Amino acid sequence: MKKKVNNGGEALKIIPLGGLEQIGMNITAFEYGDSIIVVDCGLSFPEDDMLGIDLVIPDVTYLKDNIDKVKGFFITHGHEDHIGALPYVLKEVNAPIYATKLTIGLIENKLTEHNLLRTTKRKIVRHGQSINLGAFRVEFIKTNHSIVDASALAIYSPAGIVVHTGDFKVDYTPVFGDAIDLQRFAEIGKKGVLALMCDSTNAERTGFTMSERTVGKVFDNIFAEHRNTRIIIATFASNVDRVQQIINSAYKYGRKVVVEGRSMVNIIGTASELGYLDIPDKTLIDIEQMKNYPDEQMVLITTGSQGESMAALSRMAASIHKKVQIKPGDTVIFSSNPIPGNEKAVSKVINELSMKGADVIFQDVHVSGHACQEEIKLIYSLVHPKYAIPVHGEYRHLKAQAQLAEGLGIPKDNIFLLTSGDVLEVSEERAQVVDRVQTGAILVDGLGVGDVGNIVLRDRQRLAEDGIVTVVLALEKYTNQLLSGPDIVSRGFVYVRESEDLMEECRQVAEDAVYKCLDKKISEWSKIKNTIRDDLSEFLWKRTKRSPMLLVIIMEV
Amino acid sequence: MKKKVNNGGEALKIIPLGGLEQIGMNITAFEYGDSIIVVDCGLSFPEDDMLGIDLVIPDVTYLKDNIDKVKGFFITHGHEDHIGALPYVLKEVNAPIYATKLTIGLIENKLTEHNLLRTTKRKIVRHGQSINLGAFRVEFIKTNHSIVDASALAIYSPAGIVVHTGDFKVDYTPVFGDAIDLQRFAEIGKKGVLALMCDSTNAERTGFTMSERTVGKVFDNIFAEHRNTRIIIATFASNVDRVQQIINSAYKYGRKVVVEGRSMVNIIGTASELGYLDIPDKTLIDIEQMKNYPDEQMVLITTGSQGESMAALSRMAASIHKKVQIKPGDTVIFSSNPIPGNEKAVSKVINELSMKGADVIFQDVHVSGHACQEEIKLIYSLVHPKYAIPVHGEYRHLKAQAQLAEGLGIPKDNIFLLTSGDVLEVSEERAQVVDRVQTGAILVDGLGVGDVGNIVLRDRQRLAEDGIVTVVLALEKYTNQLLSGPDIVSRGFVYVRESEDLMEECRQVAEDAVYKCLDKKISEWSKIKNTIRDDLSEFLWKRTKRSPMLLVIIMEV
Repeated sequence: MKKKVNNGGEALKIIPLGGLEQIGMNITAFEYGDSIIVVDCGLSFPEDDMLGIDLVIPDVTYLKDNIDKVKGFFITHGHEDHIGALPYVLKEVNAPIYATKLTIGLIENKLTEHNLLRTTKRKIVRHGQSINLGAFRVEFIKTNHSIVDASALAIYSPAGIVVHTGDFKVDYTPVFGDAIDLQRFAEIGKKGVLALMCDSTNAERTGFTMSERTVGKVFDNIFAEHRNTRIIIATFASNVDRVQQIINSAYKYGRKVVVEGRSMVNIIGTASELGYLDIPDKTLIDIEQMKNYPDEQMVLITTGSQGESMAALSRMAASIHKKVQIKPGDTVIFSSNPIPGNEKAVSKVINELSMKGADVIFQDVHVSGHACQEEIKLIYSLVHPKYAIPVHGEYRHLKAQAQLAEGLGIPKDNIFLLTSGDVLEVSEERAQVVDRVQTGAILVDGLGVGDVGNIVLRDRQRLAEDGIVTVVLALEKYTNQLLSGPDIVSRGFVYVRESEDLMEECRQVAEDAVYKCLDKKISEWSKIKNTIRDDLSEFLWKRTKRSPMLLVIIMEV
Repeated sequence: MKKKVNNGGEALKIIPLGGLEQIGMNITAFEYGDSIIVVDCGLSFPEDDMLGIDLVIPDVTYLKDNIDKVKGFFITHGHEDHIGALPYVLKEVNAPIYATKLTIGLIENKLTEHNLLRTTKRKIVRHGQSINLGAFRVEFIKTNHSIVDASALAIYSPAGIVVHTGDFKVDYTPVFGDAIDLQRFAEIGKKGVLALMCDSTNAERTGFTMSERTVGKVFDNIFAEHRNTRIIIATFASNVDRVQQIINSAYKYGRKVVVEGRSMVNIIGTASELGYLDIPDKTLIDIEQMKNYPDEQMVLITTGSQGESMAALSRMAASIHKKVQIKPGDTVIFSSNPIPGNEKAVSKVINELSMKGADVIFQDVHVSGHACQEEIKLIYSLVHPKYAIPVHGEYRHLKAQAQLAEGLGIPKDNIFLLTSGDVLEVSEERAQVVDRVQTGAILVDGLGVGDVGNIVLRDRQRLAEDGIVTVVLALEKYTNQLLSGPDIVSRGFVYVRESEDLMEECRQVAEDAVYKCLDKKISEWSKIKNTIRDDLSEFLWKRTKRSPMLLVIIMEV
């Protein structure tokens, strides 16, 4: 029995501003009349071809252009791909932030770093609670994920209800707090849901994601089998439940726990302050106290499960960690799977640890935080949406979810594989993409936000491939007489000390090119530069089959 | 009952010159008295931090220093990581090559390319046949692998027998030719084997690798289910059996086959010339004829299963292939698993194909060419070696095999995890590492072999991260008067057109630094350069938190 919705003839606009072409950078605007609310505001990590880039944030021109409409940000959970762009976006579009307690706690750490805490309104929301904002009411629904306090959102608008799952899994036996509130999904489904925006990350995987609690049992088994060695466990800093389970096993087997790695220390700090971690007295010790305990009474929890070169575990493996040396007999556990792209880095660390004699365990000590196919089907069956809008994932993942939705009886025309920037108008009567708005990836490099674009990246790519050869010469201002040079300086091209002949030949080619121009009375510097560049690049390609970047600088004296 | 070996008191030296720190670059020298034979001579592909490098070959200084002893190269099979360095190494150490027919065929393609065919002796060896060379006799034993004509080698020396498996799996039902000659392994084992050098690639994987033939059944099923669409299949060019099975399914379902991608065309050419492929008449058609057949009568076999950006399938996915456009409804099959490091590239191609409406199948259409744990145990049990020397793999893989060997009763002291360059002396009495010889990775970049080393790579890394800022100025020769500049030119640092202020500030900092020196009567150019570099780098780090390479060039006029 569907409840009639009063849509006043107007449609709801759903405008993803990021997150649909890749994993990460999740941000979606919902617009009705003169109200816009934004769900999530994440960053993504640079692709392999984004050389030197630190992180990537979404282009929020659309929000800036409609700044008066923007009522607030609703954040589903505290992962970087959902909160990481907030400090950058808030500087341009300041609006209140609504999220659960731990999520707000993690956001506040970021705001403090960026000196934005004073100027940003935050409101902690409990699961089950709703926020009225402009034309919208937004209800937070309890879900499970690889970070606690994750939420789905039911977004009530005059045009109808949209359910956005955020990142989620179904965990009937979570480590902390309650299982996902399936009853509430069902209740809202019964009211009649216009559209479901559901996590696609694992939509290609059959079956059901295992409960986080199963990992705790694995830890117990490993601890039971390795009573005589030190245990070092790397995992994701934000997986507070995982850390809790390590602490539980440590306590059970009479071990002290040391936490190592900046982000691990930070998040465990925040989580235990806010009551999300239950650490028995005297279990946590400082790294400096470690020497007072024998190895078999120690557990280290550390960052570096993705092989990140600067993380604590990688530094231990490479023998450059100041306080922890890997010893033969150490048991090192990767409680993680490599994120695609990190496989080789992880393997390198495993090799280094093995070479030092550590016993490395990396299989079956992890479960995913995302719903597999059977969980996705469950949510669809409870929510029973009219329209399906798969979110969170690359195209292949979105498409896999679309196929699931179709299999559940949702007509193909009611399933929307959007791209960032699409403006989808939805109402009971119809849904269609009616417009596109500006979106894109803004690259952050050091303090620079957006000052590195395609041209700079292309140059970096070329420099990375074959280096640079610089030709410098000085010409007399009026007569164009060659006063000095050409001199050749290269970097990243060949090992110069063993290639002196080649460098001298380059100089000769450049000099010939200069005189060729001067003899012909060519005085335009751009032509002289082009001639040098053309001749030298042809020479270098023939001699080396390489194309270094060529930089010709003429000084006027 | 072991046969007594006559070792005359002398020991056999086993000297791996590559292949033990990574997958690839397999090459091992066996030395007895004044005889050296070399098993395999492979290349490896560059690591992520080897920017701009095309391929990596082993340092064979040890062979050059002992060139009179080197009797020949024995090649186990025709994969790049076993034959790829031959053209480079032969230029320095020319010796005859011994291998099976297809392997020699593939080597000859390489020698032709490098203009070495005339000067290199080759001998085709049949499985079961032995070659006497110096102090050695080398017997070729039939194995199975993801390329046909693979061999293990039994190396008979006066000190005893060494069995080297090469890359192998146990396939009881291979597509072409016989199953691995397990009986011969057993017979030789019965004679008494000194050392087993066994493939470790899959030593972390439990169970048994499935037969290549199982993939044929999968193809049949897919062909049966997709009768109305074009089928495009990407796989490894060298997997001739895989190609054979695609052709079989195509023929069975009445489809024509087009082969696309340079390496695929080459290897299929060589393999069918030599009789390793059975192609029914009129099944293979030229890509130009494709337009004469409806989609449902076509199969394309193509390169690009690893997402290589220039391979045929990647070009189709990116819409830059000249002759094949992906259409909605196309069925595209990845008959491969991503090699570690290629996951993201493969995923990108899958996304692009999906966006074009293709149905992409990438799961369970592949089997490995390497032995899993149960096969490794089988070989150990047949060969029953005194010493175990795991080969082919990263340290973690070697160690996994070592654990298997220990589990089979080989004493820990008889298991050797060597590193490249170790000289292992083995005899019935004992085995020990007695020496180290020079080894290493030589980088090939374009035509340059070894002219790119750590300094150049470090420069490329820095250039890739933050680009380069060049400062040029002209000084009067005798008076050190500033005649021109400083001028600032940057590449890969910031988008200059939108950063004119920053560039002008850089110029100012450089100019101040010059005058600071000149005012103090500092005339040494190296000091002037250092001052400019220090001041500018400090300024840039404060302003941008980036460290571009700084190149200061002073022209003398």
